[in-house]
Amino acid sequence: MHSDPVFELHRRGKLEVASTVPLNTREDLSLAYTPGVAEVCRAIAADESLAEEYTWVSHAVAVVTDGSAVLGLGNIGPRAALPVMEGKAVLFKRFGGVDAVPVCLATQDVDEIVAAVTAIAPSFGGINLEDISAPRCFEVERRLDAALPIPVFHDDQHGTAIVVLAALRNAAQLLDRKLCDLRVAVSGAGAAGVAVTNMLIAGGVRADDVVVCDSRGILHSGRSELVGEKAALAAGTNAAGRTGGIAEALRGADVLIGVSGGVIAAEAVAGMAPDAIVFALANPTPEVPPAIAARYAAVVATGRSDYPNQINNVLAFPGVFRGALAARATTVTQGMKVAAAEAIAGVVADELRPDAIVPSPLDPRVAPAVADAVRMAAVRDGVVR
Amino acid sequence: MHSDPVFELHRRGKLEVASTVPLNTREDLSLAYTPGVAEVCRAIAADESLAEEYTWVSHAVAVVTDGSAVLGLGNIGPRAALPVMEGKAVLFKRFGGVDAVPVCLATQDVDEIVAAVTAIAPSFGGINLEDISAPRCFEVERRLDAALPIPVFHDDQHGTAIVVLAALRNAAQLLDRKLCDLRVAVSGAGAAGVAVTNMLIAGGVRADDVVVCDSRGILHSGRSELVGEKAALAAGTNAAGRTGGIAEALRGADVLIGVSGGVIAAEAVAGMAPDAIVFALANPTPEVPPAIAARYAAVVATGRSDYPNQINNVLAFPGVFRGALAARATTVTQGMKVAAAEAIAGVVADELRPDAIVPSPLDPRVAPAVADAVRMAAVRDGVVR
Repeated sequence: MHSDPVFELHRRGKLEVASTVPLNTREDLSLAYTPGVAEVCRAIAADESLAEEYTWVSHAVAVVTDGSAVLGLGNIGPRAALPVMEGKAVLFKRFGGVDAVPVCLATQDVDEIVAAVTAIAPSFGGINLEDISAPRCFEVERRLDAALPIPVFHDDQHGTAIVVLAALRNAAQLLDRKLCDLRVAVSGAGAAGVAVTNMLIAGGVRADDVVVCDSRGILHSGRSELVGEKAALAAGTNAAGRTGGIAEALRGADVLIGVSGGVIAAEAVAGMAPDAIVFALANPTPEVPPAIAARYAAVVATGRSDYPNQINNVLAFPGVFRGALAARATTVTQGMKVAAAEAIAGVVADELRPDAIVPSPLDPRVAPAVADAVRMAAVRDGVVR
Repeated sequence: MHSDPVFELHRRGKLEVASTVPLNTREDLSLAYTPGVAEVCRAIAADESLAEEYTWVSHAVAVVTDGSAVLGLGNIGPRAALPVMEGKAVLFKRFGGVDAVPVCLATQDVDEIVAAVTAIAPSFGGINLEDISAPRCFEVERRLDAALPIPVFHDDQHGTAIVVLAALRNAAQLLDRKLCDLRVAVSGAGAAGVAVTNMLIAGGVRADDVVVCDSRGILHSGRSELVGEKAALAAGTNAAGRTGGIAEALRGADVLIGVSGGVIAAEAVAGMAPDAIVFALANPTPEVPPAIAARYAAVVATGRSDYPNQINNVLAFPGVFRGALAARATTVTQGMKVAAAEAIAGVVADELRPDAIVPSPLDPRVAPAVADAVRMAAVRDGVVR
């Protein structure tokens, strides 16, 4: 019934687990399995750090989802999320040389997610959280990061945020602007919106000059209904105390980051400052059609592969994990994320054009550069085992 | 520091996760990942059974341990158990074409094990439990089997039991005996002892004619301290009401199955019936040295690769899972296990010798034969989705 190229490609899934050791003779068997393997077990039992040398944990991560916020499809559950997690694992291997296992959870309860991931963690060197809806994703990541001695990284937050920061650095450089002089409006206060805002501030944008909107409008300190991450953003951004909707947020702004999936009217974009930067990242439908955005903006980026300047997480996560694993990092610090963004931006720094502010997702220079930068930042930040 | 061949072989572990789809062009990316993958997700969200076709679950299993009873090493914990689980995954792939993921749990609490495995189950088509100590292993398997719509199989129990039944069938045939005429003594009432006993009875040995010993001696209905599986065995076996130790159990017995790790004195073996069968399966030290056993027994088997007649689980589990997955079985019935044993025995039925009652672990005929037999038995038993 499903015979088109997409379904044909996905038949039987997209992954296999392969052996990296020979297994053809009795001798092979006795080395790879019993009795030989017992020596390795005994050594690790005596010194657990030897697991880094003699198991796959130095290059293995779990890609964990609860299926609650998959792509733009919403809460489709764990089995329907599996093709995406397999795809993610394919990308991890192809670009980062990281062996990733899809783990789709049969629960969407925060306590149960934390318990399950904590339970399986000894098999892995890192945990990539994926497609878990906000605001649960914040608590899940925070608790797992505190509980586990390995990196925990929610890609929908930080992968997006890293690539946005990289793209904004290059866009600003192209326009001869400094991040600390830019007024930024972020449309969307979910996983990506929160992380992008925090990342831009960590990367040099002044918190006072950021305005974040959720579906009810601008976050400001007068909105007493806000809790958690949104309350923190309301308190820490928008020093001018703006109120209203996205049109008010964009008035005079230099940068629009759309991570909402909503629609932003051309008139609102028209109110931005001259030489504006518009990243309309909703997939498959950008918040502002790129052709409309181009009327008012000097640089336009989307999340789509069929337009220039694709803001794609694959530029970040393979290298981030490769670097964090190489460093034996215990966590992923803001410093490591900023370093990753700088590395991505740096790959195309000498070739900047308005339609080429980020590397192609297939650029083989990216992941090694990101991995090196992240590894060094982990050492600098003192978060290595 | 660890430079011998065993440690060299295990460096960086023994597994990788590889892609089975190309990923070289933007077109590849858009088919394997976004936007193409969304179509597959949507189809599975509408009809969950399509996950069998369009994800890896039709050939992927989790190899789950809590590290509590690893090989003969005991309770060494999850990280030290990982080299064994990786080895098991290598065997799964090599012999069964099954993609197996090691999952080493950071808990030894039954409720937490059941919760964690239930949570991760949507990513897999089967659960192989491994090296979980008795009696917790019985409850863990029973509860997971009841909770999950996929096969759950504790290999230390059933893998061993299947191969023991296969070996005993061939040994009996060689000696022109029938299983229902054999008196059997089982030394050991842990995971393997319980499963072997139940399997032999399912395979044709009369329950009345089996005597099982634990570390305190023969299980009989007068032992009021027994609970759980041991109490069931005390009630269901040993119709003659024998008491005492292994020497009393062996007096006049035709078969000894040693799965205890203890030592059985030559004098006790000497008390067996003529043309006895001795399977001394403890590793690395058989309960009876094979040379001693050979003085009194017509057929001797061990668990070791350096003696003839190695009773090795690898003859069973790759084919069992391959067959169960092919059938889309919901569980592994006793009938499927007996079918697996018959298939293993059948592979060497025409070449039987006292020192060749089971196939070599490397015999390529075994897993396909087991898989076919298990698949057909699953259909016969009506346990397919």
